[in-house]
Amino acid sequence: MHVLSVDQFDTKYLDDLFSKTQEIENTLLDKSKTEELAKKHLAKQVCTLFYEPSTRTRLSFETAALKLGMGVVSTENAAGFSSAAKGETLEDTINVLNNYRLSAIVIRHTDTGAAEKAASVSKVPIINAGDGAGEHPTQALLDAYTIKKHFGRLDNLKIVMGGDLKYGRTVRSLCRLLAFYPGNHVSFVSIPELQMGDDIKELLTSSGTTFDETDDVTKVFPDSNVVYWTRLQKERLENPGSIDKGGFTLTKDNISLLPQDSIILHPLPRVDEISPEVDSDPRAKYFEQAGNGLLIRMAILDIIASA
Amino acid sequence: MHVLSVDQFDTKYLDDLFSKTQEIENTLLDKSKTEELAKKHLAKQVCTLFYEPSTRTRLSFETAALKLGMGVVSTENAAGFSSAAKGETLEDTINVLNNYRLSAIVIRHTDTGAAEKAASVSKVPIINAGDGAGEHPTQALLDAYTIKKHFGRLDNLKIVMGGDLKYGRTVRSLCRLLAFYPGNHVSFVSIPELQMGDDIKELLTSSGTTFDETDDVTKVFPDSNVVYWTRLQKERLENPGSIDKGGFTLTKDNISLLPQDSIILHPLPRVDEISPEVDSDPRAKYFEQAGNGLLIRMAILDIIASA
Amino acid sequence: MHVLSVDQFDTKYLDDLFSKTQEIENTLLDKSKTEELAKKHLAKQVCTLFYEPSTRTRLSFETAALKLGMGVVSTENAAGFSSAAKGETLEDTINVLNNYRLSAIVIRHTDTGAAEKAASVSKVPIINAGDGAGEHPTQALLDAYTIKKHFGRLDNLKIVMGGDLKYGRTVRSLCRLLAFYPGNHVSFVSIPELQMGDDIKELLTSSGTTFDETDDVTKVFPDSNVVYWTRLQKERLENPGSIDKGGFTLTKDNISLLPQDSIILHPLPRVDEISPEVDSDPRAKYFEQAGNGLLIRMAILDIIASA
Repeated sequence: MHVLSVDQFDTKYLDDLFSKTQEIENTLLDKSKTEELAKKHLAKQVCTLFYEPSTRTRLSFETAALKLGMGVVSTENAAGFSSAAKGETLEDTINVLNNYRLSAIVIRHTDTGAAEKAASVSKVPIINAGDGAGEHPTQALLDAYTIKKHFGRLDNLKIVMGGDLKYGRTVRSLCRLLAFYPGNHVSFVSIPELQMGDDIKELLTSSGTTFDETDDVTKVFPDSNVVYWTRLQKERLENPGSIDKGGFTLTKDNISLLPQDSIILHPLPRVDEISPEVDSDPRAKYFEQAGNGLLIRMAILDIIASA
Repeated sequence: MHVLSVDQFDTKYLDDLFSKTQEIENTLLDKSKTEELAKKHLAKQVCTLFYEPSTRTRLSFETAALKLGMGVVSTENAAGFSSAAKGETLEDTINVLNNYRLSAIVIRHTDTGAAEKAASVSKVPIINAGDGAGEHPTQALLDAYTIKKHFGRLDNLKIVMGGDLKYGRTVRSLCRLLAFYPGNHVSFVSIPELQMGDDIKELLTSSGTTFDETDDVTKVFPDSNVVYWTRLQKERLENPGSIDKGGFTLTKDNISLLPQDSIILHPLPRVDEISPEVDSDPRAKYFEQAGNGLLIRMAILDIIASA
Repeated sequence: MHVLSVDQFDTKYLDDLFSKTQEIENTLLDKSKTEELAKKHLAKQVCTLFYEPSTRTRLSFETAALKLGMGVVSTENAAGFSSAAKGETLEDTINVLNNYRLSAIVIRHTDTGAAEKAASVSKVPIINAGDGAGEHPTQALLDAYTIKKHFGRLDNLKIVMGGDLKYGRTVRSLCRLLAFYPGNHVSFVSIPELQMGDDIKELLTSSGTTFDETDDVTKVFPDSNVVYWTRLQKERLENPGSIDKGGFTLTKDNISLLPQDSIILHPLPRVDEISPEVDSDPRAKYFEQAGNGLLIRMAILDIIASA
């Protein structure tokens, strides 16, 4: 019922969800079907309960709900519920909202585990839209959907992941999804201080997913299907200068090494780790990827509201 | 037309409103009637004009509007209208919104009397969602509806009110509603510094409603129908330590003195004046009470939009 | 497609837009036609992307969208997109939103030229709702519509503009619209330090629109059709005391000089440059003018969503 963590998924769930997502994508190509869809859940409402602003994610969920005919009530100021003077536990807030006859509560929180805590008392489905250093499962789903859509599969792919692999939530979650499928190989590209954690590497190994580590994109780009790039957070580094020399910025030059049929993804926002000149390359799919978030969230909300 | 103060109600109004509320509650049990209701006021819009955040109340009103098919425009930042540089009077703001062809304006304000002031220039119905130390009439209505729903009546009840009775807006308003009905008896439980004000006591006396005062819950709990508990605001006290010894926290232990058919209410948020262990007791109705706010607000908005 | 600047309009566009606006105003007089209109764009959504709060403008656009059946997703906190830690360019934000399948993006920004920049990368229509010291084209349109509605024409009018003419965005834009039409005469009333800029005076001259400058309302009021009053921003002046002696506050007294059929406009908010006693005068149209903003925005959104 709840959507809390990548851990709760399996290939069956992903297959069904991605079929549903594709179905919605097709529906939106047809004007009269789109209008039909916009009446489907007319009497239902979703609450976007955000304890910190995350406008991109919130607008994506809200547009998704509206396209299904659902009403939206919203706050980016949910921390007000637990303000100093009127302190209220997250559980109490969820208990109150449970009596507002909502069809789903989309929660964004600063604290790791907050979505799980909310779900533990909620009879209304909770969707985790990011909880601190914890999970952001719909991001992982939209990443996987984007790959699936392009290649028709999520197995036997060569994926390069670059940037801050140690702290990056998205690369860690995507690894866990890729490990469900056979024959994938991941190349981790980062500086040593920000390389992928051992927990994920062990998970890959135990699932039979191979990987290598490098700090040189030229070695791995020529034989890649997917480049998943992320922001290298200079503020985490002792010697930020080392990044600039390392080729951790995608440019027309280094992406010329990529096969024609490969795709370049990024969870956004990007700062300067992808040069704007890359945007017009047909392999650059990061804005389309953001749009797939709308579709995935429509599919999830539709499934939940139809239950 | 406007809903500004408990003073404007009488038993006829409450009877009609509570019938309407019950009718809406029944409607929401039926899927196709719920969908019908969600189309009822399709072309109408409500503005939630909040000069301070009160997310619980705002989301309740907005969900209520959406369930009636009304659109919602909203701000929690209405103070921006009267910002230093662009100072605008409340009356001007209301005059502008009066030309936006809205069906109702729900106002929350920091200043006592603001809702009255807004109504004085408004041709569009104003609903007071709390104005400073002033009124919050829909809270009083949902409190009374919760009691009515459980006991089938608002007369001949024994009501214990506990906590900060001196400054608490909700207990004061509820007393004024209970005074409409014969045979009620109120027991005020607080420390002397925070006991109920003389104005309310005089109003009760003049209406024939009896009351007593105590600081000992064990004396009044065994013979109560309703316990209405509120937060004791320690920051208002010279000697806050005295509270902790006073039994002003509801626990499994002290609520065991209550009759089986009694109910425990609280306007929420609660901090530590009701122990979480009480939540699972069937007499604890405070979350359901919050949900009744949605129903009361639907009834009020439906009446206003149908006028 | 985009609505960015007064410069993009011509008399043909204004004629069509004002006909459409009048048509919508008539529709809203009819209950069943209003309900029909509220279903017209059921499956479409608008985003109000505000980098600074402007509640009046935002609520006007959002109510307009809802009355056309469109859903609204909204932020007043769009600056969060480009927050220090996660810096994102405006172009990237627009590229993301372009993939959310929206019908229009209404942007309010602190930087002059931001709407133009957004439009340069957007396939979705951008509507400029004010960008810094730049443009606010729908304000100019609603001003012109209010005049047109009253006099049946936008030519051969005598318009007094008063207040801060040097920095005031609205008077400058209105001058540019009036210059499209023959036979208008503008009287600029201000103190020398805040008189109209030479660029606008040259534009008027080159279009054959005559003007004069004065600091004395008694000279120009007796022969005026329109008084367009704005706030004199004392904080911009070296000697603010000079204003108070200058008669720059509209009062019952000085507006008694105006012809019976004239109208008084103001872009709002007003502070003390129009005395509240003027509000009840039938010539005072500034609140109605604000309501015309709703109608103009409905017309614009309807045209865009129907394209």
